[in-house]
Amino acid sequence: MLNKDRIAEDYKKIQDEITSGLEQLDGLTLFEEENWERPGGGGGRTRVIQNGDLIEKGGVNFSAVYGKLPEAVKKAFKTDKEEFFATGVSIVLHPHNPWVPIIHMNIRYFEMDSNDDQSLKWFGGGIDVTPHYIIDKDARFFHNHIKNVCDQSNLEFYPKFKKWADDYFYIKHRHETRGIGGIFYDRLTPENTGISWDNIFDFSKNVGRSFVPVYTELVKETRNKKFGLEEKQWQFQRRSRYAEFNLVYDSGTKFGLETDGRIESILMSMPPMASWVYNFQAEPNSLEEKTLNLLKKDIDWAG
Amino acid sequence: MLNKDRIAEDYKKIQDEITSGLEQLDGLTLFEEENWERPGGGGGRTRVIQNGDLIEKGGVNFSAVYGKLPEAVKKAFKTDKEEFFATGVSIVLHPHNPWVPIIHMNIRYFEMDSNDDQSLKWFGGGIDVTPHYIIDKDARFFHNHIKNVCDQSNLEFYPKFKKWADDYFYIKHRHETRGIGGIFYDRLTPENTGISWDNIFDFSKNVGRSFVPVYTELVKETRNKKFGLEEKQWQFQRRSRYAEFNLVYDSGTKFGLETDGRIESILMSMPPMASWVYNFQAEPNSLEEKTLNLLKKDIDWAG
Repeated sequence: MLNKDRIAEDYKKIQDEITSGLEQLDGLTLFEEENWERPGGGGGRTRVIQNGDLIEKGGVNFSAVYGKLPEAVKKAFKTDKEEFFATGVSIVLHPHNPWVPIIHMNIRYFEMDSNDDQSLKWFGGGIDVTPHYIIDKDARFFHNHIKNVCDQSNLEFYPKFKKWADDYFYIKHRHETRGIGGIFYDRLTPENTGISWDNIFDFSKNVGRSFVPVYTELVKETRNKKFGLEEKQWQFQRRSRYAEFNLVYDSGTKFGLETDGRIESILMSMPPMASWVYNFQAEPNSLEEKTLNLLKKDIDWAG
Repeated sequence: MLNKDRIAEDYKKIQDEITSGLEQLDGLTLFEEENWERPGGGGGRTRVIQNGDLIEKGGVNFSAVYGKLPEAVKKAFKTDKEEFFATGVSIVLHPHNPWVPIIHMNIRYFEMDSNDDQSLKWFGGGIDVTPHYIIDKDARFFHNHIKNVCDQSNLEFYPKFKKWADDYFYIKHRHETRGIGGIFYDRLTPENTGISWDNIFDFSKNVGRSFVPVYTELVKETRNKKFGLEEKQWQFQRRSRYAEFNLVYDSGTKFGLETDGRIESILMSMPPMASWVYNFQAEPNSLEEKTLNLLKKDIDWAG
């Protein structure tokens, strides 16, 4: 049987594995840890790295919070449940080198009225990549790797969750996707997946544990690739789109802002430096233009 | 009698006066103009200045649009009206020098079912200042100048609209005001102001025409004040709060994003360069700390 404390424990271990894996990968800087408590119940462990060799700014956040369900959430979920429990690991990394992509991962578990027969619970999460410059080979590697993780649990997961990511990570007002997508899933239960709670939990942990190997591969060649001011300015511009997505559309961020959560943990995903240039037009046939043309839904990167 | 075409014409003239006043003040760079049409009716004249001597990035936007009222707006206004007309001038300027404040001004007129006896109409607008470093003397000058503009029309305007600005330009998730405020007003009619439509229109134009003299005074000493990397980094951080406000709370921006407006005009207010630093703490007794401590509602700057 699923036990919420064990889920939180395992997620916490995954945070440990990821932060030590990333410290090794970065090679220069260590994470700083901040433990925080939530006035209404529970708390978290925010770990942030700034000005590393590879990572300019990144956060790996663990939290396990519980208490009375905020009114805003009751409304959004159309429920009359009173209590909630939520635990998860969230990551966003902004690299120095514009050739290295931004990466985001989240695994989470949510439960309402845990001790009740009528309790509602589900898993959610995903992993997606936002390159400043899209490199075909890396995009294909990433999607194939994630597809393999999905296939281990259910062959329907990848196609379904890939489409979900395309739809979710979409910057409607720009008519462009945030990046090359990945997978996104929410409200997974045995009913809608055809696999047991334990197997969904395992899938969730497999997604979490895929993070370090995936990112290690994505940075292998790109982190040492030369760049100049022009690439850096392009990176700042792409980061501004990332900021727009997070502040305007991201559910987790919006939820955090509306429920007066710990603001520095919620916004640790924001870029260290971003720029908005009026009416920027990419040069014809440039790598910038090629990237913009690939910010579309329904590209079959795993094919 | 109020005539919507004359309002649009006068607003357009105000845009002209402001852009030529600002070009003179900047002394280096001219505005670039972009005329755009709205598929549903009307259009606008976006003028943007980038990399000037004084202004790093700024926009002065005029628009006069009309057509069928979007469903989202009907809902927000709880109305069954079918047609709308809206015209206005919007300004945001981001200066190079961190000692010079960011400034924002907007005047607008809105009408629903213009040719109907039951037409609904009102004026809205405001002007407010967001210093990276709050300078007492300049904050007092600004509020007193704007109070004088208000007092010419109605002695109740300044106290009422000053409080409105404090409440509106509030970054709830940061528990801080965007800057030192100014005035904000909306839905002004003869019924709720006690002055005629013509007098409300004149007030609106007085606010518009106060822009150049106010900004000229605010930049007079600050534009030549020395600054280094530290002040510039602080400016980038303050700008990130400005970006947060615009994307999360600003009604005009939200309306534009939701109704698929011309994105480059809507987001011309975004900063040229902004930075998010994790958990920044100002040095005790620094100017940064002093500024943060003054980002509060209900400070009597005009007193």
